Amino acid sequence: MTQSPRRKSIGSQRNPETIAAVRAAAEAVLEQKGLAGFTIEAVAKEARAGKPTIYRGWGGRAGLLLDIYQSRKPADLHPDTGSVRSDIAAFLVNLMDSWEGTSAGPIFRSIVVEAQQTAASRNALDGYFVEVIAETEAMLSRGAASGEICKDANLPQAAEMLLSITVQRLLSGRSLGVKDAGLMADMILSGIAPQTNGSSS
Amino acid sequence: MTQSPRRKSIGSQRNPETIAAVRAAAEAVLEQKGLAGFTIEAVAKEARAGKPTIYRGWGGRAGLLLDIYQSRKPADLHPDTGSVRSDIAAFLVNLMDSWEGTSAGPIFRSIVVEAQQTAASRNALDGYFVEVIAETEAMLSRGAASGEICKDANLPQAAEMLLSITVQRLLSGRSLGVKDAGLMADMILSGIAPQTNGSSS
Repeated sequence: MTQSPRRKSIGSQRNPETIAAVRAAAEAVLEQKGLAGFTIEAVAKEARAGKPTIYRGWGGRAGLLLDIYQSRKPADLHPDTGSVRSDIAAFLVNLMDSWEGTSAGPIFRSIVVEAQQTAASRNALDGYFVEVIAETEAMLSRGAASGEICKDANLPQAAEMLLSITVQRLLSGRSLGVKDAGLMADMILSGIAPQTNGSSS
Repeated sequence: MTQSPRRKSIGSQRNPETIAAVRAAAEAVLEQKGLAGFTIEAVAKEARAGKPTIYRGWGGRAGLLLDIYQSRKPADLHPDTGSVRSDIAAFLVNLMDSWEGTSAGPIFRSIVVEAQQTAASRNALDGYFVEVIAETEAMLSRGAASGEICKDANLPQAAEMLLSITVQRLLSGRSLGVKDAGLMADMILSGIAPQTNGSSS
């Protein structure tokens, strides 16, 4: 589970009290004003902090939203069911459920919107994708260890494919149920080419 | 290549002259004011049409942008190279190139943004996805005919996976080159599970 070079470390520039104050302010502003009223200005005012502090620490609105998003998403998106096929299907369903059933979905959509406006926001979104991909890769690694997945399979790429289909479904308003999730797990595992004995071109 | 029931047919309500006038106005407004100034109001004024006409005919800003987008995207996203693996890789590269190298990319991003605001826009985006998925499915069908793809493979789902990875890359600012495209084609075809003889669970 390696970190992408594109993820920025900003922790060293921040002190814990400021972080806590800005986070609390961000939660309060989101609660009181909703996503439409969630601006850097409003959060800075609520936190009695300068806007540059927030830009420096979080990169902008998307980074701040991502911080809230991370604190709200379920801890266990990637269960260990004992079968990698079931793990994959459960991950897809868990992620969609967290988006469709909680405030995480609207916040995530808002991050995607923001990411189309500024490079800093796009990097924040990309950093989140890198993180989920790494977590999903760790889940797939269990399948490689158990022999359910090829030792030389490109796990980050498989993980990205799984993530991307949930993102597309969310953004275009299509749900993804248990049956779809199972079909997608089958496809990632077996592909669509006729199975040949031993060769995997 | 079946049409999804979720795609709306609006042609019957529109007369060709109005369509042409609104399209020309939309192109002109986009040219003159850019995406930020591209509003239903501005297009209606330029076309000397009422805003309800545009809402009725195109659903809203996303539908109008999609109309422009469709007229600008390359005709041949899905080449027939004689090998389905090459076709898949070429499709991924062609779609990313059209997004990264032309005005189609910013327009598409703007449609995605709009789709997070209203249900009509979300349906427009979904309708576009349905269309690309159907075209990609047709491409994969050639592989099924030639024996490169299983007869009973779920082609719409494979097509959706291919599309979704390009969407995710675009939205998070990652490019997708020829090498990635080839790896993705391999993965969709062969999967990541060890190949077994004959069984494809």
